[in-house]
Amino acid sequence: MVGQRFVQLLDGHPQFEITALAASDRSEGKTYLEATNWKLSTPIPERIKTMVVTPCQPPLECDMVFSSLPGNMARETESLFAQAGYPVISNSSSHRMGVDVPLLVPEINPDHVKMIDRQRHTQGYGRGYIVTNPNCTTLALVLALAPIERTFGIEAAFISSMQAISGAGYPGVASLDIVDNVIPFIDGEEDKVETEPQKILGKLQDGQLIFAPMQISAHCNRVAVTDGHTISISLKLRKKAELTEIQAALESFRGVPQELRLPSAPNQVVVVRTERDRPQPRLDRDCGNGMSSVVGRLRKDPIWDVKFTVLGHNTVRGAAGAAILNAELLAHEGYL
Amino acid sequence: MVGQRFVQLLDGHPQFEITALAASDRSEGKTYLEATNWKLSTPIPERIKTMVVTPCQPPLECDMVFSSLPGNMARETESLFAQAGYPVISNSSSHRMGVDVPLLVPEINPDHVKMIDRQRHTQGYGRGYIVTNPNCTTLALVLALAPIERTFGIEAAFISSMQAISGAGYPGVASLDIVDNVIPFIDGEEDKVETEPQKILGKLQDGQLIFAPMQISAHCNRVAVTDGHTISISLKLRKKAELTEIQAALESFRGVPQELRLPSAPNQVVVVRTERDRPQPRLDRDCGNGMSSVVGRLRKDPIWDVKFTVLGHNTVRGAAGAAILNAELLAHEGYL
Amino acid sequence: MVGQRFVQLLDGHPQFEITALAASDRSEGKTYLEATNWKLSTPIPERIKTMVVTPCQPPLECDMVFSSLPGNMARETESLFAQAGYPVISNSSSHRMGVDVPLLVPEINPDHVKMIDRQRHTQGYGRGYIVTNPNCTTLALVLALAPIERTFGIEAAFISSMQAISGAGYPGVASLDIVDNVIPFIDGEEDKVETEPQKILGKLQDGQLIFAPMQISAHCNRVAVTDGHTISISLKLRKKAELTEIQAALESFRGVPQELRLPSAPNQVVVVRTERDRPQPRLDRDCGNGMSSVVGRLRKDPIWDVKFTVLGHNTVRGAAGAAILNAELLAHEGYL
Amino acid sequence: MVGQRFVQLLDGHPQFEITALAASDRSEGKTYLEATNWKLSTPIPERIKTMVVTPCQPPLECDMVFSSLPGNMARETESLFAQAGYPVISNSSSHRMGVDVPLLVPEINPDHVKMIDRQRHTQGYGRGYIVTNPNCTTLALVLALAPIERTFGIEAAFISSMQAISGAGYPGVASLDIVDNVIPFIDGEEDKVETEPQKILGKLQDGQLIFAPMQISAHCNRVAVTDGHTISISLKLRKKAELTEIQAALESFRGVPQELRLPSAPNQVVVVRTERDRPQPRLDRDCGNGMSSVVGRLRKDPIWDVKFTVLGHNTVRGAAGAAILNAELLAHEGYL
Repeated sequence: MVGQRFVQLLDGHPQFEITALAASDRSEGKTYLEATNWKLSTPIPERIKTMVVTPCQPPLECDMVFSSLPGNMARETESLFAQAGYPVISNSSSHRMGVDVPLLVPEINPDHVKMIDRQRHTQGYGRGYIVTNPNCTTLALVLALAPIERTFGIEAAFISSMQAISGAGYPGVASLDIVDNVIPFIDGEEDKVETEPQKILGKLQDGQLIFAPMQISAHCNRVAVTDGHTISISLKLRKKAELTEIQAALESFRGVPQELRLPSAPNQVVVVRTERDRPQPRLDRDCGNGMSSVVGRLRKDPIWDVKFTVLGHNTVRGAAGAAILNAELLAHEGYL
Repeated sequence: MVGQRFVQLLDGHPQFEITALAASDRSEGKTYLEATNWKLSTPIPERIKTMVVTPCQPPLECDMVFSSLPGNMARETESLFAQAGYPVISNSSSHRMGVDVPLLVPEINPDHVKMIDRQRHTQGYGRGYIVTNPNCTTLALVLALAPIERTFGIEAAFISSMQAISGAGYPGVASLDIVDNVIPFIDGEEDKVETEPQKILGKLQDGQLIFAPMQISAHCNRVAVTDGHTISISLKLRKKAELTEIQAALESFRGVPQELRLPSAPNQVVVVRTERDRPQPRLDRDCGNGMSSVVGRLRKDPIWDVKFTVLGHNTVRGAAGAAILNAELLAHEGYL
Repeated sequence: MVGQRFVQLLDGHPQFEITALAASDRSEGKTYLEATNWKLSTPIPERIKTMVVTPCQPPLECDMVFSSLPGNMARETESLFAQAGYPVISNSSSHRMGVDVPLLVPEINPDHVKMIDRQRHTQGYGRGYIVTNPNCTTLALVLALAPIERTFGIEAAFISSMQAISGAGYPGVASLDIVDNVIPFIDGEEDKVETEPQKILGKLQDGQLIFAPMQISAHCNRVAVTDGHTISISLKLRKKAELTEIQAALESFRGVPQELRLPSAPNQVVVVRTERDRPQPRLDRDCGNGMSSVVGRLRKDPIWDVKFTVLGHNTVRGAAGAAILNAELLAHEGYL
Repeated sequence: MVGQRFVQLLDGHPQFEITALAASDRSEGKTYLEATNWKLSTPIPERIKTMVVTPCQPPLECDMVFSSLPGNMARETESLFAQAGYPVISNSSSHRMGVDVPLLVPEINPDHVKMIDRQRHTQGYGRGYIVTNPNCTTLALVLALAPIERTFGIEAAFISSMQAISGAGYPGVASLDIVDNVIPFIDGEEDKVETEPQKILGKLQDGQLIFAPMQISAHCNRVAVTDGHTISISLKLRKKAELTEIQAALESFRGVPQELRLPSAPNQVVVVRTERDRPQPRLDRDCGNGMSSVVGRLRKDPIWDVKFTVLGHNTVRGAAGAAILNAELLAHEGYL
């Protein structure tokens, strides 16, 4: 599903053009039309249909690589490409927590791109490098956490997610497991959500990344939604804050991508809805072309300080769109 | 939906028999078959089909009243019946938090029935009285909280629910709001979940109910599930506990209904599943004929002490079944 | 839902601009933002949000009226507006089968607009008139029937529909009726599907409309799909035809809207998919911006001649989009 | 899914007891608990949990074999078991249309068991033999067709199905293919539905099976329903019939299983609902413990004679329950 989103979102992109498609052995030598089981409601771009899928190894006919490989395959393959001199913009989880690997969210930590220099040095990568974007749930979440963290400080967060089936790829979740049902488990997901935000919100000091000191407890659930992860969240702040101040912090959040008007950047990073029953995945996932996080139900938390609901498009901002925005920032910073 | 569950669960009940059906003006004078829009998969009991629905006011041809009225109507109507000498076993929310009104869960607080004596006195009810059962989400939750509270003490709880559509009655939730969607809001629900458990787990001292000192923060969400509320929960305990000790406390939990073998009592109050992806509403809601709470994913909480998932059948144990079990206890205690 | 689609599709329309919004008593005097329960994933156009809803009667501040009223209200109200001199472009069913009322599908029967002249005369309407578009299921169907009827003749058709919940409006279908369920009944729908195509495909002779002599048997079912009606169909032709000839007739079907490049006209009226499992509502409903019919599974029928599946977007081409395309044709023909 | 239904339905069966479980290589040597991915809402019978799965080949510790193998594997394996002297009661499709293989529906063609004698002879099977039950859609359908065929004769039938996801096994249909979607294709299904009824309704003459001369055209669709196939059907009769006569024929239909009171036989073979919106899968699939067919919306067909909706439980009467009822008949007839 994420591969298909890359193809969809890169179609007509002002800076990037798909010149090669690489995939697992099973698809090698087939055209993309033959190899893919297209599940998006927009058509496959004509030019891509007839492109032949090549093996997933260097050399590839391209200047940089977008990677969305399964965890087991990603670790080695991405390192190989970086070694061979390719910038690897990865949506995979393998290298996310690696020392010197930026876990990049351009609105939040654009300065983390500097970690690339040390990465090249320590890994002996030459021109190549690896940059990652977070897990889909983390990304929806962290866009809302960042402005609150900066303004008031966040000590701890409880989060409980209701995640879309597209997050599990295709065929992914069996229909018998999700029609009239909830699955209260997603393999490896809670670990990611509990550890990635601290790195993303971390600060570079003397080339060293100091993680944000924030405790997170996550419950990850799968529900019968095609696209869009909905997250219930309660926060313990370091500094007392009125709800109106929090809303203002969320709504005024802007970053480098907005300043630079990067092609995939949403105008409004965090959209705050004031209706009592929003955000909802069917209605709000396409907000900002799927690149915004949508917050609603902002209210006092009876134990800690504040609670709310946040929603993000898991295969756009939570995956392919995140990687493309990363690439747009990297291009601007001269890394592509 | 709850009315239909009453009719279904009381069919063939060893102690109770439906002798009268009362409803709103709209249904008066119709047979039950005409008045109801039956949505259960078992047939309407033959004897009930032809019963004529009477106005919802005393006198009624019966010894006691099961009530499942909408909040606005329940307050006055239930008081009227109590005043007229009827025991009112209510599933409505109006009187739940009333002083001297038991919020009864027979496995947890069977001694709270004694509050009836004072209620009769202060309200001048004579033979009549009002006994309530908790909100559907509260009930699934509190069956799992009680054994942990007793053994280790609970200081605070974060809960996030994924609730079934049957909880909203019929027609209730519009299909356009729930197909491919989540609604992160249920009117009044979070208040109930945040306040009822403390009363249920409270202690009677000198006729006075001392609420359990427990903080709860609730996020209530609606998902595309027909029956069965799924709840993610994190707990802060007063006493450190190993996961195995918590599991043992949950599994060994038994109460008066089990000792007395009350007809609707589940053998196992809390069923603990050890598979990594249970409980699930489609598979587990009928556990113990819908009268058990099912717990799974018991694990350490990275902020507090323990987190898990709990599931209960919202219209059986969470509504009609709860009221019927209450009546069975009240009958045994001589209050019927 | 259809009213919302009108607002959505008319936003930015090159020819038409919303100048007034009229609705039932309940909404009068409210802003559109207050009056509507917006259920589309695009935002409400800013300009429309603050427009105040006026009573549904002449005079209205506009040159023509788009109507999507419930059947009971439509008959009288639409006549009143026509009487008052307004062209009424209606999506309602009341006047569809009226003598001298065009049941207009611009690709199929653009000459039926001439019926307006006689309508004005017999009804004494002056400048006003009523033009209708078909039922949502009929429209998806008839776009595929028309090229086959013209080339080979159609004697009879069996159709069985699987219709989306948006077709029932909001709140419409109760969620308990559609989650894990099918409803094999839609009030009044089968009659419409069995009688409207003959009028649409009819021929004007000497100002008289001769209905196409075609027998239709329809089964209409509701399924858990948000948008997009899927229809299984078997046809008895008047002239034998190879599947390739039928496919060619479908794919080459073009009409006046395509020639005139009307703003809402799809490039391809009928899209034929050759994959074995298409069309599917989630993937194909937005084909041609929701204005095309999508046909698939074209194969021999073992009893009659040919069978296939056809899919159309029920609130776009099947409702608001149909009316807007009608208005575009009427404008071109000098009737607006 | 069908294997699990066998285990569920045979638990506590008065005549049959599971003594061995055989499956593919992947499961060999595991306990049933380890090998299965149990998806039913009743628990796995305790005795079965610890049974070890053996290879799927003779000899097996049993007197007869229930088979529900995938098509490719069934042909050879079932023949091997029959050769080795085992009665094979099969739910697989491989041998259904085989000469001398009964396609048995005990209410309809109990005399077809006599085909076993010739099968044993021609195949040299000794004690062994193969008996099959129809496809799940065919079975729901043919229970309603049989009484109409016998009373009025059926010349032709159009059917369009909306089939449950459990019919595709597990993991079967991907959730992304069915949430907010319809799949208008089920591999091989239409062929089965168009050809099996004629064999089932056929007559044995001098040991030769004469197929019923009936034309069927089928459209098979998959929808988001867990269990229960819903079928729209139009019929051309040989003899004119009033709707009341057809209803009477359906409701009075009884067969050998009802006379013999076979353990799995439903009291009422075909249940006719007169509400305008029934049958519905969620409400009616468990009718007669899932062994009845439920008919509703009986009405005149504008082209042929009569049309209606029929619903059956696809994994109970449509699969495991059908085979078990077959075995019960075979036991009574002395074939076990």
